[in-house]
Amino acid sequence: MSNLDIAAENPYFDQARSAALVNGRMGEQTPERLREIMTVLVNHLHAAIKEAEITEEEWMAGIRFLTDVGHMCTDWRQEFILLSDVLGVSMLVDAVSNERPEAATANTVLGPFYVQNSPHYPNGHNICLDGKGEPLVISGRVVDEAGRPVAGAEVDVWQTNDEGFYDVQQKGIQPDYNLRGVFTTDEQGEYWLKSVKPRHYPIPHDGPVGRLLTALGRHPNRPAHIHFIVRGEGFQTVTTHIFAPDCPFLASDPVFGVKKSLIADFRRVEDQALAEKYGLAAPFWHVEWDFVLVAA
Amino acid sequence: MSNLDIAAENPYFDQARSAALVNGRMGEQTPERLREIMTVLVNHLHAAIKEAEITEEEWMAGIRFLTDVGHMCTDWRQEFILLSDVLGVSMLVDAVSNERPEAATANTVLGPFYVQNSPHYPNGHNICLDGKGEPLVISGRVVDEAGRPVAGAEVDVWQTNDEGFYDVQQKGIQPDYNLRGVFTTDEQGEYWLKSVKPRHYPIPHDGPVGRLLTALGRHPNRPAHIHFIVRGEGFQTVTTHIFAPDCPFLASDPVFGVKKSLIADFRRVEDQALAEKYGLAAPFWHVEWDFVLVAA
Repeated sequence: MSNLDIAAENPYFDQARSAALVNGRMGEQTPERLREIMTVLVNHLHAAIKEAEITEEEWMAGIRFLTDVGHMCTDWRQEFILLSDVLGVSMLVDAVSNERPEAATANTVLGPFYVQNSPHYPNGHNICLDGKGEPLVISGRVVDEAGRPVAGAEVDVWQTNDEGFYDVQQKGIQPDYNLRGVFTTDEQGEYWLKSVKPRHYPIPHDGPVGRLLTALGRHPNRPAHIHFIVRGEGFQTVTTHIFAPDCPFLASDPVFGVKKSLIADFRRVEDQALAEKYGLAAPFWHVEWDFVLVAA
Repeated sequence: MSNLDIAAENPYFDQARSAALVNGRMGEQTPERLREIMTVLVNHLHAAIKEAEITEEEWMAGIRFLTDVGHMCTDWRQEFILLSDVLGVSMLVDAVSNERPEAATANTVLGPFYVQNSPHYPNGHNICLDGKGEPLVISGRVVDEAGRPVAGAEVDVWQTNDEGFYDVQQKGIQPDYNLRGVFTTDEQGEYWLKSVKPRHYPIPHDGPVGRLLTALGRHPNRPAHIHFIVRGEGFQTVTTHIFAPDCPFLASDPVFGVKKSLIADFRRVEDQALAEKYGLAAPFWHVEWDFVLVAA
């Protein structure tokens, strides 16, 4: 029997078929996709309440929590996205809506610190504008699934400084556009740039989501990472991170952003000759990272 | 494998076991009931996202909706409770947390218009203080599951006037405590009172929940009803409604408050002699309603 039939036959509340009743109430004019989504959400919401045997007090605590989350939201603070992040929902939606071939570079969420129109730089440029931190060289190629170079691809990069802050969080302390920039691959699909080693940083945890994390015995520190958006003509744009393998928070990212395939090898280089090749003094860090794009 | 094992073995994001990963992250100090509830919620939330294949745009629309609901909440407006109501969640939580024997009077949600410390009246008193509306007599008994009278039980009643407003919504227009009062059963378990026929009324629908209702092709009008809380010493207190069978919105209550067993027979009485017995003039409405209490 369809939800509509169930609702028409007996339109009154009945615990056993509560979700069918709610879903059967939707009108004929309800857009098909909205009907589909609401049906799934109501089914799972009702199933969860029955399974967990939620009491009125617990329900009221939930209402208060959601209200607090809503009241924390302003033009510059999105506590519901944060809640989605710490419940693994943002990463899951990203995965569900951007399914990619096994061999392709894995995608991750954009995060709140991306800035459009970062400066374009020639390969080899240093995006660390204040010279603070341990020097890092990032180099690699952008290729297609067959391993062929993608020339002229844009590698848009952004990261924290060595204290765990993005430039936009420290206006007036860090130079504008510190640790962000756009590079372009050459004919061999190669790119390279100089930067500094990023550091872990806490997600905003002074609100209700932070209190939830504490109650769940979790910490707020995102493991050290570097963000990239890679764009190649004729290819799907990929938004991704790479993670430093030695960060103590690597295995406990509060937003579940770490995918195994995105943990990079940050090598510490003592070789002075190699350092000079990059215009640096040893020691420095070096990460080689290739991006594999999928045809659009 | 437990969630904890799954999370420990491979702590990185993986679509297939995303919920286990989130749940496995909870610390050992997490209170057991919180762990239980979060596990069920996260499982169903992740399952819903996968089943509906939520896109990033749809997720963002959801974030905006929840934010709007949060911003609508004030000290005197609870839009999250309203959302819970229209999704059938409030009635479901009430049902799940107050399971009652088949024969007992069914419970419903309290609703936002209950006022503590209503005036106590002798049986037969008229709670309609401004004389507006079609006269109604409510009479009946409070009994236990074996049908034995419960003497000294309190019948706490409240309802809208004939225009669909509660006194608290029309301060200065309706007298204070209009259409509410507490009656006490006599030795035979009997109570009776005079009132007026209630009218349907819309739930607040000028906010995001109202917009959702519209998108779902639903109207905001609660069918005409009368609220009761019945308290008897040694018995479980029951919060309930009765519904008028002739209300056009009976089969489409936006908050799913109608249970079949709570639809009362509102009889229209033309008999002048009977009217005089109740101190009224014919015609008037009469509803006989017994409450069946469960031992505490």
